[in-house]
Amino acid sequence: MSDGSDSAAAAPWRATVLTLYPEMFPGPLGLSLSGDALARGAWCLEPRQIREHGLGRHRNVDDTPAGGGAGMVLRCDVLGPAIDAASPEGDLRPRLLMSPRGKPLTQARVRALSEGLGAVIVCGRFEGVDERVIEGRGLEEVSIGDYILSGGEIGALVLIDACVRLLPGVMGKHESGVEESFEGGLLEYPHYTRPREWEGRAIPDVLMGGNHAAIARWRHEQSLVLTRARRPDLLAEEAP
Amino acid sequence: MSDGSDSAAAAPWRATVLTLYPEMFPGPLGLSLSGDALARGAWCLEPRQIREHGLGRHRNVDDTPAGGGAGMVLRCDVLGPAIDAASPEGDLRPRLLMSPRGKPLTQARVRALSEGLGAVIVCGRFEGVDERVIEGRGLEEVSIGDYILSGGEIGALVLIDACVRLLPGVMGKHESGVEESFEGGLLEYPHYTRPREWEGRAIPDVLMGGNHAAIARWRHEQSLVLTRARRPDLLAEEAP
Repeated sequence: MSDGSDSAAAAPWRATVLTLYPEMFPGPLGLSLSGDALARGAWCLEPRQIREHGLGRHRNVDDTPAGGGAGMVLRCDVLGPAIDAASPEGDLRPRLLMSPRGKPLTQARVRALSEGLGAVIVCGRFEGVDERVIEGRGLEEVSIGDYILSGGEIGALVLIDACVRLLPGVMGKHESGVEESFEGGLLEYPHYTRPREWEGRAIPDVLMGGNHAAIARWRHEQSLVLTRARRPDLLAEEAP
Repeated sequence: MSDGSDSAAAAPWRATVLTLYPEMFPGPLGLSLSGDALARGAWCLEPRQIREHGLGRHRNVDDTPAGGGAGMVLRCDVLGPAIDAASPEGDLRPRLLMSPRGKPLTQARVRALSEGLGAVIVCGRFEGVDERVIEGRGLEEVSIGDYILSGGEIGALVLIDACVRLLPGVMGKHESGVEESFEGGLLEYPHYTRPREWEGRAIPDVLMGGNHAAIARWRHEQSLVLTRARRPDLLAEEAP
């Protein structure tokens, strides 16, 4: 909101969330890594109540689906104005709609989002959102996985948490190494720490030997074995 | 905990969450659909602080990875006793570990979990969890998607929300139809509701015509088109 000429560069990553449950935010994002970063202004969070743009005395936001069927659909003439108010012209942040129909969220997309200005995130509820507001406001549908949630809010928490931990200065030494998993295209190798033996199970000798090349080799092999067993799809993507 | 002979059948679905941040729960699960159901005892939630089983005066829970590397690893001699206390012998609920290395969560797995007694959910933090506790306590690693979060807690919220909405009596008429998406193996068709025209965009005529067979056909076609465009992998799975 400052008019300083370099304010854009300095502006913190900003998540605006349109929801019928603004009190769900920051929720878990107010604690731990993201909570510390929020408290010191490394990012900011603006939950917005869609119902403020509801219609009539009861602030209605939804109606029955055209063509019949179960559930209720969020109205375009409510969500449209809500988006316009939250993200006026000139707001260059992507507009996302959390939806099981969306493109599956990946770590690459998370990284790209975290390198941008932030995101405007629309949380659906009920049966869905009128298709015309998706088209008319250029919403990018994002899915966090192949399952159904009671609304988009927990998906928004997922997306924001994933982005915020990548912001400069957010991760400390406790968390710094966790990247490799998906960015290397393989699942992470097994971890061990003290004690050396527990319930008759020992830390693998190679990890105790101090031979860094051997350790790196073992870890890579373990990652390959795990990925082949659990997620052959990740290896298939690697092939040209 | 009652000794009534039919208490098992009557016991509500129960989620026990082992975490370093028990104050993240119920969080968003305390509101809306899952919150209403929680308030009336349709399910119950037990967050458990792992640190209560920490070692020494500082209740340490983690240590540096054997073989070197960034991050910290949750100790097996802390997490093991924490799991034993939260889920003693005779507890028949599955023990899940939220982890990006896990098997991707699907709506079918969600449904199976929701039809069971509940779940014991371990939330990792830092670099990961000592592999020996995964083996020794038979933890099933579950991933909510191919991205990295700052911890397992938000993943646990996802998993619980997905399960709870399927419990008998939790969904009302507003939410009842949402299933079809993944259970039919296709993405959901577009939704529309009033007004008939908005910003020059009209509801497709077929939905206004009252021909139920034509509407069903149109919706199925739209689902196919969307799934082909966005998620051809779902169609590939359909093939025998």
